[in-house]
Amino acid sequence: MNHDRDPSGQSILIVGTGLIGTSIGLALVEMGERVWLSDADPQALATAVERGAGSSDLESLPDEGPHVVFVAVPPLKAAQVITTSLSTYVNATISDVVSTKSKLLLDIDSMSGDLSRYVPGHPMAGRELSGPSAARADLFVDRMWALTPTEQTDPDRVSQVADLVYRLGSSVVTTTPEQHDRAVALTSHTPQIVASLVAAGLSPLDDVGVSLSGQGLRDVTRLAASDADLWAEILASNAGPVASSLTGLIDRLEVLRDALQSEPPDQSALAASLLAGAKGYARVPGKHGSASTRYAVVPVVVADQPGELGRLFADIGAAGVNLEDVRIEHTQGRPTGLVELEVQPSSAELLAGSLRDQGWDVRF
Amino acid sequence: MNHDRDPSGQSILIVGTGLIGTSIGLALVEMGERVWLSDADPQALATAVERGAGSSDLESLPDEGPHVVFVAVPPLKAAQVITTSLSTYVNATISDVVSTKSKLLLDIDSMSGDLSRYVPGHPMAGRELSGPSAARADLFVDRMWALTPTEQTDPDRVSQVADLVYRLGSSVVTTTPEQHDRAVALTSHTPQIVASLVAAGLSPLDDVGVSLSGQGLRDVTRLAASDADLWAEILASNAGPVASSLTGLIDRLEVLRDALQSEPPDQSALAASLLAGAKGYARVPGKHGSASTRYAVVPVVVADQPGELGRLFADIGAAGVNLEDVRIEHTQGRPTGLVELEVQPSSAELLAGSLRDQGWDVRF
Repeated sequence: MNHDRDPSGQSILIVGTGLIGTSIGLALVEMGERVWLSDADPQALATAVERGAGSSDLESLPDEGPHVVFVAVPPLKAAQVITTSLSTYVNATISDVVSTKSKLLLDIDSMSGDLSRYVPGHPMAGRELSGPSAARADLFVDRMWALTPTEQTDPDRVSQVADLVYRLGSSVVTTTPEQHDRAVALTSHTPQIVASLVAAGLSPLDDVGVSLSGQGLRDVTRLAASDADLWAEILASNAGPVASSLTGLIDRLEVLRDALQSEPPDQSALAASLLAGAKGYARVPGKHGSASTRYAVVPVVVADQPGELGRLFADIGAAGVNLEDVRIEHTQGRPTGLVELEVQPSSAELLAGSLRDQGWDVRF
Repeated sequence: MNHDRDPSGQSILIVGTGLIGTSIGLALVEMGERVWLSDADPQALATAVERGAGSSDLESLPDEGPHVVFVAVPPLKAAQVITTSLSTYVNATISDVVSTKSKLLLDIDSMSGDLSRYVPGHPMAGRELSGPSAARADLFVDRMWALTPTEQTDPDRVSQVADLVYRLGSSVVTTTPEQHDRAVALTSHTPQIVASLVAAGLSPLDDVGVSLSGQGLRDVTRLAASDADLWAEILASNAGPVASSLTGLIDRLEVLRDALQSEPPDQSALAASLLAGAKGYARVPGKHGSASTRYAVVPVVVADQPGELGRLFADIGAAGVNLEDVRIEHTQGRPTGLVELEVQPSSAELLAGSLRDQGWDVRF
């Protein structure tokens, strides 16, 4: 958060005191903004007030109403609450936090006349937990926050929301609702589905079969542990773009399966499919907004007991080498793990040598 | 490796001195076994000998020939070399390291009469690098190594290979060739394909669209960076099981897409698909052979500069808490990262409190 700036001095109303709404409130109050809260659930509202996310006394709002309203209610209720807010607070800028935008805009458009004051938003932040007690003032720090203005949206209102988002610690990305929804269909919703359906495919395997799996399967299926009901709602709200992304994926799978079923299998077609994947992967953002860099990997064997990783990372610090990433690979039936240290290629030799000098089992 | 045992005293010949063959040789020599090497490429053979992986002087083999032959040539040459080895060394046990088994067995069966001395194998080990200069004596430590005997295979020969595999540091998994191939189609080959084809699907997105992606996309697509030609060969050698796995995946994708295209989208069908995934994911091996446990996640904000991770892990060690896993999430456009520490749920509060006391920005 940006404590180095004066408060904006605006009155801000947050409708919906779940995880996201309460977190926005906590952050804004912490930086000196005046925040009001409302929620249909008196218990959730009381918790948010108790945690210091704002005041529930809407009577004390200035006569001209709030400058900004953040609508942070569940997706299915958002259109109604946004429409009501637009007509109740006729001067206010209204924003929201729903994770898909086109369907929401369509719903709002059918209910309301003037959308110039509505700035659709989507913070890329969340936790495994939900509700106001899980809220955190720093939930949005270092995250992306999409704003998806339409042709009707007043650009000054977009700047007003973007300024608050920046104060919350997020980076603002401005795009159209359609581009946003297509992007999250490809970058978030399709990976979620694929993780689940690959994991579901393990059902015919016995335990011996499943034991023949490594880090790759775990990476690809990790998202399958997410909340099924929540995701069903998200996918349903972005049905068109997700269905179209799946159609593309099915097409590519069929091309590859056809290459496998040729007699003999068509290896150059297989390689072409995989090469297209390598090209796409190169565009996946790594750190700091750059395309993903190929780091050097320095593998180290570490015993599975308290303090070993601490000792290792202390030695890495002493070597003066900056870690770009760390992965820990566990092995079935062995009391050790393999720690893969990713560093700039130019630092790999230095790090490996230094760790060996400290007695580590380095496999570089 | 198991240096606490006496050498087996057997004569061992390794045919093929690439990464795998040379690594087997280095490990066996290190534990005092007598090892001979051969390779069609004199340069590769010379490098392996120079590195101490064994002797290239086949004249010095005992008159009765080697006790065991490991065939570690490229997949497409393996059937011929195994068949030749069976007829050249009439007393020897022959094993191999090819990553798919059924097609290889079929090829060998068509060339050779007596398969009782052949023990098919597949070490689950590798590196990004290849060739004898990349070989390591500890390549197989803490890895799984599948043996896939057929009805014709002599069980004593299986035990003989299993004993050597265990000495190399691996855990032995015995299964049938068909089960092995079906298992790796589902646990290794399908995740590889899915990673590539999801990554390939990003091509219509501009840079703004791609920027709306998080850790999930990176996890799912990480394997897409692998060597396309090598994987094309692997997939071609397991064409049947992989095609059948893809057919299952396509079916599940179509079910889910149909649920999305219902009017309105069928949320309970969507949730059912995702729940099947959660069930499958629960079977993916975590560490120590157990099904994956749900650990508590303690997120910590860390500045992106040398020594910060070292300081963090030193403090974790001082807290006496054993880390189960670590993930580092980088943020675009911010000079910090989020380190997610996975620990037993019972240790999470202790760890979070202890790190806060040391001044860390803990978001637990």
